[in-house]
Amino acid sequence: MGNFGRNLGLATLGFAFAMPVLADEGMWTPDQVPQIAAAMKEKGLKLNPEALSDLTAHPMGAIVSLGGCTASFVSDTGLVVTNHHCAYGSIQYNSTAEKNLIVDGFYAETLGDELPAAPGSRVSVTTDVTDVTQQITGGLAEEMSARDRFQAIDDRRKKMVADCEVDEATRCAVSAFHGGLQYFLTTRMTILDVRLVYAPAGAVGKYGGDIDNWQWPRHTGDFAFYRAYVGPDGTPADFAEENIPFVPKHHLAVQPQGLRNGDFVMAAGYPGRTSRYRRLSEVNHAFSWQYPLLEDVLGNWIGTIESAAPTGSDARVKYASLLAGLNNFHKNLGGQMEGARKVGLTSRKKATETALDAWVAADADRIAKYQTSIAKMDAVILAGQQTRVRDQFYGYVGARPALLSAAKRLYRLSLEKQKPNEAREPGFQDRDMRGFSQRIQRTDRRYDAKVDQTVWEMFLTYYGSLEGADRVAAFDMALGMSGADLPDVSGYYANPALATSEARLAWMEKTPADFEASDDPFIRLAVALFDYDMEREETLKIRAGKLQTLRPKYMEAIIAYSQTQGKAIYPDANSTLRITYGTVLGGSPQDGLEYKPFTTLEGILAKDTGLDPFDSPKAQLALIEAGDYGKYALDDIGSVPVNFLADLDITGGNSGSPALNDKGELVGLLFDGTYESINSDWDFDVKTTRSIQVDVRYMLWVMEKLDHTDRLLVEMGVK
Amino acid sequence: MGNFGRNLGLATLGFAFAMPVLADEGMWTPDQVPQIAAAMKEKGLKLNPEALSDLTAHPMGAIVSLGGCTASFVSDTGLVVTNHHCAYGSIQYNSTAEKNLIVDGFYAETLGDELPAAPGSRVSVTTDVTDVTQQITGGLAEEMSARDRFQAIDDRRKKMVADCEVDEATRCAVSAFHGGLQYFLTTRMTILDVRLVYAPAGAVGKYGGDIDNWQWPRHTGDFAFYRAYVGPDGTPADFAEENIPFVPKHHLAVQPQGLRNGDFVMAAGYPGRTSRYRRLSEVNHAFSWQYPLLEDVLGNWIGTIESAAPTGSDARVKYASLLAGLNNFHKNLGGQMEGARKVGLTSRKKATETALDAWVAADADRIAKYQTSIAKMDAVILAGQQTRVRDQFYGYVGARPALLSAAKRLYRLSLEKQKPNEAREPGFQDRDMRGFSQRIQRTDRRYDAKVDQTVWEMFLTYYGSLEGADRVAAFDMALGMSGADLPDVSGYYANPALATSEARLAWMEKTPADFEASDDPFIRLAVALFDYDMEREETLKIRAGKLQTLRPKYMEAIIAYSQTQGKAIYPDANSTLRITYGTVLGGSPQDGLEYKPFTTLEGILAKDTGLDPFDSPKAQLALIEAGDYGKYALDDIGSVPVNFLADLDITGGNSGSPALNDKGELVGLLFDGTYESINSDWDFDVKTTRSIQVDVRYMLWVMEKLDHTDRLLVEMGVK
Repeated sequence: MGNFGRNLGLATLGFAFAMPVLADEGMWTPDQVPQIAAAMKEKGLKLNPEALSDLTAHPMGAIVSLGGCTASFVSDTGLVVTNHHCAYGSIQYNSTAEKNLIVDGFYAETLGDELPAAPGSRVSVTTDVTDVTQQITGGLAEEMSARDRFQAIDDRRKKMVADCEVDEATRCAVSAFHGGLQYFLTTRMTILDVRLVYAPAGAVGKYGGDIDNWQWPRHTGDFAFYRAYVGPDGTPADFAEENIPFVPKHHLAVQPQGLRNGDFVMAAGYPGRTSRYRRLSEVNHAFSWQYPLLEDVLGNWIGTIESAAPTGSDARVKYASLLAGLNNFHKNLGGQMEGARKVGLTSRKKATETALDAWVAADADRIAKYQTSIAKMDAVILAGQQTRVRDQFYGYVGARPALLSAAKRLYRLSLEKQKPNEAREPGFQDRDMRGFSQRIQRTDRRYDAKVDQTVWEMFLTYYGSLEGADRVAAFDMALGMSGADLPDVSGYYANPALATSEARLAWMEKTPADFEASDDPFIRLAVALFDYDMEREETLKIRAGKLQTLRPKYMEAIIAYSQTQGKAIYPDANSTLRITYGTVLGGSPQDGLEYKPFTTLEGILAKDTGLDPFDSPKAQLALIEAGDYGKYALDDIGSVPVNFLADLDITGGNSGSPALNDKGELVGLLFDGTYESINSDWDFDVKTTRSIQVDVRYMLWVMEKLDHTDRLLVEMGVK
Repeated sequence: MGNFGRNLGLATLGFAFAMPVLADEGMWTPDQVPQIAAAMKEKGLKLNPEALSDLTAHPMGAIVSLGGCTASFVSDTGLVVTNHHCAYGSIQYNSTAEKNLIVDGFYAETLGDELPAAPGSRVSVTTDVTDVTQQITGGLAEEMSARDRFQAIDDRRKKMVADCEVDEATRCAVSAFHGGLQYFLTTRMTILDVRLVYAPAGAVGKYGGDIDNWQWPRHTGDFAFYRAYVGPDGTPADFAEENIPFVPKHHLAVQPQGLRNGDFVMAAGYPGRTSRYRRLSEVNHAFSWQYPLLEDVLGNWIGTIESAAPTGSDARVKYASLLAGLNNFHKNLGGQMEGARKVGLTSRKKATETALDAWVAADADRIAKYQTSIAKMDAVILAGQQTRVRDQFYGYVGARPALLSAAKRLYRLSLEKQKPNEAREPGFQDRDMRGFSQRIQRTDRRYDAKVDQTVWEMFLTYYGSLEGADRVAAFDMALGMSGADLPDVSGYYANPALATSEARLAWMEKTPADFEASDDPFIRLAVALFDYDMEREETLKIRAGKLQTLRPKYMEAIIAYSQTQGKAIYPDANSTLRITYGTVLGGSPQDGLEYKPFTTLEGILAKDTGLDPFDSPKAQLALIEAGDYGKYALDDIGSVPVNFLADLDITGGNSGSPALNDKGELVGLLFDGTYESINSDWDFDVKTTRSIQVDVRYMLWVMEKLDHTDRLLVEMGVK
């Protein structure tokens, strides 16, 4: 039984419930629902808002995490719907040169035909959230060093997680809110046997590809289905023949009527990270230094992979997922920077910061409470930026080669194993070993020696141009590098010890001495870099420890200041379950231009060139030309709606979130934001921020007319 | 006194006046106005439509041609307004490395400060249009050979033009309508002394540059002012100190109120070429062969110039105008092809053609009248396409080098001079000598030896890859080329005889023998290619002669067939004065997207990056930030409108056309079409075709607030 609704009270910080809320901005924690209930009702919510605070009730109980994506149960036999791009790894994992599911799509005619998802795929149901702030931060001495403080909090978190994880199926996490002002323990039931049920053809699910990514108008059928399986006893179990479909407590009703322009819409999901309360120095670091640099590096990286793994090669299949991610990020960066310029991010942030600082400075109590902390936080942030060049490029050359990364993780594992389980770093505890070995196996399908080497050489070229303190002595020494001359790294790839899954799994059992005695170049490099890596980790922990006391003070100041302005403050996204609500509506992305709220089937015809990524299946084009809408047309637009816009407040991690109508029924899936919205991670602009959803009517139309997935339509009760 | 309105009657082809017209498609000849008068009135025209048929009355008498662009008189002292891009050559001509008017703009504080426009700049006022079909084609024997027929018509046209051009200021032309179904003699008074009065800064006049070219939303201040000067006696004269401003019979009133969404709007101008009645084989030639080829060649050409003439170099200034043209054409081609695909051009044309052919085949009279002619025309078209590869590439390698082109023209001149004046080819008669020498001088400002040579080598590479009949033996022999090996052409540029204006002018007086005795490589090449060029010209004349009888029959069939469908047919554009009318309105360029009819000053702020081509003058940004709209705001949009959309039917040559309100007052200038409209040269799609106009309110706002051109505002009566 979730008690999220009872304890997270910003009320403890002086807020009254039902405080007025501006516009629809906000990724609200379920416990904040009472604060926004009136506004949601006014917007059109029909179900009782209180239901949304209860994570174990309908509809929140049907919302699940895939780790990085959101999904939801849509049948009482474990059927899960999410985005095509969230299931992409599993579609790719089951593809071969002969049978390319990315291109052809996949439909399991029967339960027995359902395919295992990519290793490590999980469906996690949040079962409980508890405020543990006092248990995590209470009673720590003021004069404690930052490093000790970090360790104390870390130890408490680990202990709490270990105590919470009573069985294999229970996974727990302690999440910091408002930079550590509050901590919550989240308990999730984790389903380990996840199977791929149905994905439309790539030319539907990924229609428009990278070209249309972040764009409107959009015509992407970004949906796919998994199924959650459990052991015959109904509890989570690894993949096994005898496993049976999971029966969730709640699942969403699928509403084939969908929505109309102006309708209320909401979504629940697991947004990953936002930075809405950052200091100006952090904004400048990102927009004036890191993003321009990354834009260059990523462009180069993408080009290098594309050259080394030409279209049609086996290697390209292995790098398809990484390439998709890099392209997405690359476009995102461009959008972030353009968006920042358009909304005047820097000057807006400067104004906000100046106002906050002035408000603090205007009152002796506030000065005492906040001013020194904020100044110290600013100093810590700036100090961290001193090593950014080295950190950025060492992060590439010292960790990107797949087998170097594996060697580092394996060597670290051998060392961590010397400690008692609870004392180990996160990621190296017994609870992590399943994921550890799956990750180590997955490499096979995503690694090609030639591509890996070429990419490493590209990063070494960047690194070679660095000077002085921007270089890492241990790395230079190990590689025999000085200046810009590139070392010959071909020896690393000649006969690597960790080239196969079997070998890597075997090395999970080795001792530190085994590693130190190895003559494999990647393992030797991992050993040679270890001390530097640990030193770097220590530095980061000290910095984190400092910010653990400073940032909460800063957030307290922001919350108190915002209260004086009648504004509620939701916490930055942190991969915990959030609710956002708003309206189906178009928008004006720029002067002279307007987005309509819906796209239509005919728009697919108009975009179609027959060439990837605008190469819709011929059968779909024929259905559109025949005007065969079935029961899925929206009269207002005279066609079947394909995608629609809303002003939901989302970010990465929300992908796959169900779009819900006023009764909590599924009417689409969130999958993207418009180009003008990319910047919303830093600054939500109510004028231009728009989320993009695939419309339930298009999903069902494709399933009924194109792919004939009758079994699933019946299962969801829409046929 | 224009009698265009009396004689061109499609009535002679069986049409009644005031026939219903579909939508607003149509570039109507002034004499067709009675046919569209009712529709224009229904749309909102307030002035008497008959006035539009009279070329010597207001407002048509105020519309002038600049040769390739349209303009209009806007004061009784010869002030002429046109597009910035139409005056670009003159702005460039007056620019130096020290004083770059392209960047800074130009404003003549007094009459005396007005600068001579680029050599060859003219303002032409159409004074008379007469149907001369009978005089041109009457009495020619049916059995005449195509070559003889071509010559006969050519001779009659030349004679008619010679007789018409009674003085220096009178320039006449015989234009074919409907492919030769009708001929009209146009008489124009030509003003020879044209001066640059005012052009805003490039970052206003060319705001958005090539990136925004053909795009909406648009924020381009594409306007500039010339003034027409005449001799002290009031008649046209070459530039001279004592010249005085021309007093036009009519000028347009400038209406600072502008238009609102939904208002009637019309434009008059000189559209260049359209191809709305082409055969399917011609459409396929263009879209399946020529355009894809040109897209490749132009991309290469642009890149070659940009490399050879880097930004900031003197050479780049010389090639700025050509580059702008090539970029424009390149983007146009992409738009043409994309547009053709989107509207299904080929299948639409196929359907039209099938319907026409079926209608002809359904009736014995029609078979007799049209069928054989159409079949013969198709055969001539196909025969012409046989040599297209050779024609295309020889057109580049054998004519593009600037001094080869000059040598060819000069050698041809020496030969033509052997004939009596009237017997010479057009372009080589006495009447043409002023333009001839101006063109020959202009080369200096647009020629750089290194760039010219690099571009020639690029074309030679293309040519070198051709084989067999696609090559020109005379060219191969002269260059010493065989196969793909590139000849060394550096000798051509070592010390060319025609490098200076003076040299080229001097060669205008030389004899054929002088050319034949020259050892200048370009002159020798011109002489060596002459026979092949003449042979090619003969072939084209024979083909033209055949089409001169065949295409009119085909157009007759189209007109008759369209009549059965109640549809009026306007002639394809041919650089004669036309009228188009419609409505101020937005549009939907694609599914899910809408264009608003107006853009605003604030849109400039939002687009501005500070980097070319989005580097608006700081003073303009400050005015916008201050909300200093003056009296030029449109309440409906809460700002000063910058550009607006309408459904006017236009093409190249319409640039600079005045947009007129229901009373014939100037409310803007046409300067472009949206990307979806590029294809309209082949097929007007009422759904997507939109013209882009700069709004009079933005023009006046820039003049008053930014550039303080009070003298001109007073002259136009708006201050």
